[in-house]
Amino acid sequence: MNKQNPISYYLPILDWGRRYNKSKMMDDSVAAVIVAIMLIPQALALALVAGMPPETGLYASIFGLSVYAVFGTSSTLSVGPVAVLSLMTAAALAKLSLNGSAEYIVAALTLTLLTGIFLLALGMFRLGFMANFLSHPVISAFITASAIIIGFSQLQHFLGISASGQNIGGILSSLLQSMPDANFITLALGLGSIAFILWCKLGLKKILLHIGMKQSLVSVISKTGPVFAAIISSALVYAYRLDLQGVQILGEVPQGLPGLALPTISLELIRSLVGSAVLLSIIGFVGSISIAQTLAAKRRERIDLDQELVGLGAANIAVAFTGGLPVGGGFSRTMVNYNAGAATPAAGLMTALLVALVALFFTPLLFWLPKACLASIIIVAVLPLIDFSTLGKSWSYSKADFSAVSITLVLTLLVGVEVGIAAGVLASILIHLYKTSQPHVAVVGRVAGTEHFRNIKRHKVETFETLLSIRIDESLYFANTRYMEELIFSLVAEKPKLQHVILMCPAVNAIDMSALGTLEKINEALEELGIKLHLSEVKGPIMDKLIDTDFFKNLSGNNYLSQNQAIEDLKDYEIPFSGL
Amino acid sequence: MNKQNPISYYLPILDWGRRYNKSKMMDDSVAAVIVAIMLIPQALALALVAGMPPETGLYASIFGLSVYAVFGTSSTLSVGPVAVLSLMTAAALAKLSLNGSAEYIVAALTLTLLTGIFLLALGMFRLGFMANFLSHPVISAFITASAIIIGFSQLQHFLGISASGQNIGGILSSLLQSMPDANFITLALGLGSIAFILWCKLGLKKILLHIGMKQSLVSVISKTGPVFAAIISSALVYAYRLDLQGVQILGEVPQGLPGLALPTISLELIRSLVGSAVLLSIIGFVGSISIAQTLAAKRRERIDLDQELVGLGAANIAVAFTGGLPVGGGFSRTMVNYNAGAATPAAGLMTALLVALVALFFTPLLFWLPKACLASIIIVAVLPLIDFSTLGKSWSYSKADFSAVSITLVLTLLVGVEVGIAAGVLASILIHLYKTSQPHVAVVGRVAGTEHFRNIKRHKVETFETLLSIRIDESLYFANTRYMEELIFSLVAEKPKLQHVILMCPAVNAIDMSALGTLEKINEALEELGIKLHLSEVKGPIMDKLIDTDFFKNLSGNNYLSQNQAIEDLKDYEIPFSGL
Repeated sequence: MNKQNPISYYLPILDWGRRYNKSKMMDDSVAAVIVAIMLIPQALALALVAGMPPETGLYASIFGLSVYAVFGTSSTLSVGPVAVLSLMTAAALAKLSLNGSAEYIVAALTLTLLTGIFLLALGMFRLGFMANFLSHPVISAFITASAIIIGFSQLQHFLGISASGQNIGGILSSLLQSMPDANFITLALGLGSIAFILWCKLGLKKILLHIGMKQSLVSVISKTGPVFAAIISSALVYAYRLDLQGVQILGEVPQGLPGLALPTISLELIRSLVGSAVLLSIIGFVGSISIAQTLAAKRRERIDLDQELVGLGAANIAVAFTGGLPVGGGFSRTMVNYNAGAATPAAGLMTALLVALVALFFTPLLFWLPKACLASIIIVAVLPLIDFSTLGKSWSYSKADFSAVSITLVLTLLVGVEVGIAAGVLASILIHLYKTSQPHVAVVGRVAGTEHFRNIKRHKVETFETLLSIRIDESLYFANTRYMEELIFSLVAEKPKLQHVILMCPAVNAIDMSALGTLEKINEALEELGIKLHLSEVKGPIMDKLIDTDFFKNLSGNNYLSQNQAIEDLKDYEIPFSGL
Repeated sequence: MNKQNPISYYLPILDWGRRYNKSKMMDDSVAAVIVAIMLIPQALALALVAGMPPETGLYASIFGLSVYAVFGTSSTLSVGPVAVLSLMTAAALAKLSLNGSAEYIVAALTLTLLTGIFLLALGMFRLGFMANFLSHPVISAFITASAIIIGFSQLQHFLGISASGQNIGGILSSLLQSMPDANFITLALGLGSIAFILWCKLGLKKILLHIGMKQSLVSVISKTGPVFAAIISSALVYAYRLDLQGVQILGEVPQGLPGLALPTISLELIRSLVGSAVLLSIIGFVGSISIAQTLAAKRRERIDLDQELVGLGAANIAVAFTGGLPVGGGFSRTMVNYNAGAATPAAGLMTALLVALVALFFTPLLFWLPKACLASIIIVAVLPLIDFSTLGKSWSYSKADFSAVSITLVLTLLVGVEVGIAAGVLASILIHLYKTSQPHVAVVGRVAGTEHFRNIKRHKVETFETLLSIRIDESLYFANTRYMEELIFSLVAEKPKLQHVILMCPAVNAIDMSALGTLEKINEALEELGIKLHLSEVKGPIMDKLIDTDFFKNLSGNNYLSQNQAIEDLKDYEIPFSGL
């Protein structure tokens, strides 16, 4: 990244491309092969999750990866179809009443395009920071719930029946209705695939390590489980013509690459999809950058939030024009890419090339692939996303976070992904406002013989009947200003001999207009009661702003640099008495 | 208020009623007369603003005042029709396509009922604090814009034409269209009334004071302008039969009190009005409590937010059953009530009684009242609400607040009240999140020879090549956690010899789950780089929560009570070099 040179800022490929060499190329190609092996079956399966034809998953991978490689800043992010985004696509399109698959594809491409435009616009206007308004536990809960929904939605392929529904209730009732048509050969194939893939990941790995194979090779082989499951299950279907016994197969997948075209889009379609596109782009972005940032930090590299938005936006727009589905950075594929040693975004370009070769020459081989095998690949892929530890951790650390997490989890599972994430975001913002609306405020007194001031409830300190010292441990802004006003006046009402109120502000990091107005009101009201309002230990940047305000000019009392100075100046030689 | 006794908590009248005496009664009756004189013409006019028959303004005043007196906690709040609420009622009902005035009245009563139920529910569930989520400058901008819209909407009555529209553009274009039908006698009556009322408020007051009349009496007389304007203009219409020359008059106002009844309400109507009711109740509540709180503070009284919600909710429900329109605490009438010496809510009961007498016996006198005179009363009443000083103050104090204020002002004026206030609230929340999302963070060094640590950019301090001390001046939560992560790693990238990062947390008032997760990630990533993460000066309540977390257990470095201890422990006898 080079902020001085705008061209290579917007086209990071010019920067890293200039320094590309043979050794990096070797690293990149090894990573590309491993990621491609993992990506191809996932891409086919995730297209089905989104309700799209399988080849669109390949197209989305080819163009998502290559365009991101040009514009993206992460050296390891592996862009392509992502489980949560495919699920959200299916949910968004299920709300529309569409006739037939042609209309469905048009709607999916429109959604992809809108998502891309939205991401690009956020990047152009440098609004990447808005992704930060999402609470991490809420996202984690959302991804867990989404993974569970995806897992349940794949059960239909295991049973050889068809089921629909955008939440657990819908999917289960739909499954139960079609249960009489369940096909047991399909179930056996599906369970067999799962067992095989899991065995490759766990059992085979141990055996190979035991017989002394190199760690890096073992790690590659253990990831080929899905590919071998696909080959073996296809062969079984072909050999025993299981398709004639009710096993659903992928069927004909068009050979070749898609043309550059975008179907005509109606304004009405745009209007009905724009909300979903906003949600998709936010979730896609947040998911991509959290993994990209984590891995970049491990290599002391930095990624640029706004340029990431541009990269992901451009990738989605390219995919929309080449008949794909929404793409983002996949968590597990990115981890694999990183561990396999991908050195630059060129690894992504090479992966795209390999997927393109498959699309060009090998799609006829996919004909016999049973859908149950693809379902098993998806189920194994989403299993690591299910993580209930957030629920337990937040319960013990913060009940506020726990509420936001449970709201997200329950609503996503029981109502659907869009309601779930929207409610989660809203809940986390309201909870944050609520928490800061009742700031920690302490009445303080001086620890005898020192210049330290402590909470009178926690320490034995000296206080004075004519003085009230209040330390505010929070920035003052609209959500807590009325609480503070209430509190000050109820404290004032308790001290009949009161002459001075000192607000001690060492932890006040900001004072907004609402708070300023309230301080003005407090100052006036206290003055009418014959009580002076003083400030102490106001931070430099705050004082810079306060100094020109009417509040400060009309302040009945003084502004002290230290609380001790304030007390010394105001205590008025009274006999101190001890607080608790 | 007596929190120990739940009955007198929910029925404050039992509390103050028990201590009622003759002297308080005298004070209350004087205030009641003055407020009634002010209220009666306003109530008629505000019913017209809401698009309702004039008598409904009287009913709303009678039942709003008396029910609030039983449940409310403010001794001076004068409940009844309020300009902003009448405008919002008109805006809410304009969105529905209603046929005829009967349907309109049903819709208005439904809106009033929903508003009451919503207020009551907020009070019951003790959610009064939610009113605090509104930024004061945003409310002030909203009230200013509403007052301007009301003023413009009254021009139709001045011109004797009819115009509609929920924003400045709509009202002006509607006025221009009907302009050819303008009636100049009406205009003369209107302008005459305004001039007279303003003269009573300003000119007459001076004269009376000059001739030595008692201040309190002058203050009463100067407020009778609207009543005399009504009497004089009615007399003129009657004497010269101006109604035959195109001057619109109020016409027949039903005599008597309304029966207790609520029209049948459709579920569809409820669905389409519930959003507006939420906005009405929030604005009604916030407007009422800000004036009530200000006045209570002046008398060292306290009002209870949740019980206020109950009082206002009950008042609106009562009004819905007696054919009125949404009510709240009126700013100017409450000020008058306070200044006239109202001692208890009994003043409100007496005002209600006086209004009831008018409704019972004097409505025939209202027949000849010209609408232009009512319009002039409204215009004079909303003038003090127009306050552009917030715009200027926020411009110089805080650009963030200025943006929220301008958004509210512009959208309310140009689009309408509901869009305006919703956008304002959203903007103020997003702006707050944005501000705290980029917290003030300082790299600090030690002031040589002291234990004080200061920003290296502002002070000459000693720093160490192996140490990085970062002071975070904000609570850590989801909106700023990624920013902090970014910042720490870019600072780390600048110091190749770095061995220790110390986070100095004296101003960190909270750490949420998102921030905790990020701290965990930072700790791990730094550890992989061979850098230890330390904490210093963490506040007691924060440490109480941190102590049991995985983050704290896995912290690679130490937790220091003071920053100086940390430096002494970690500086490793290096030769210090001076920062700027």
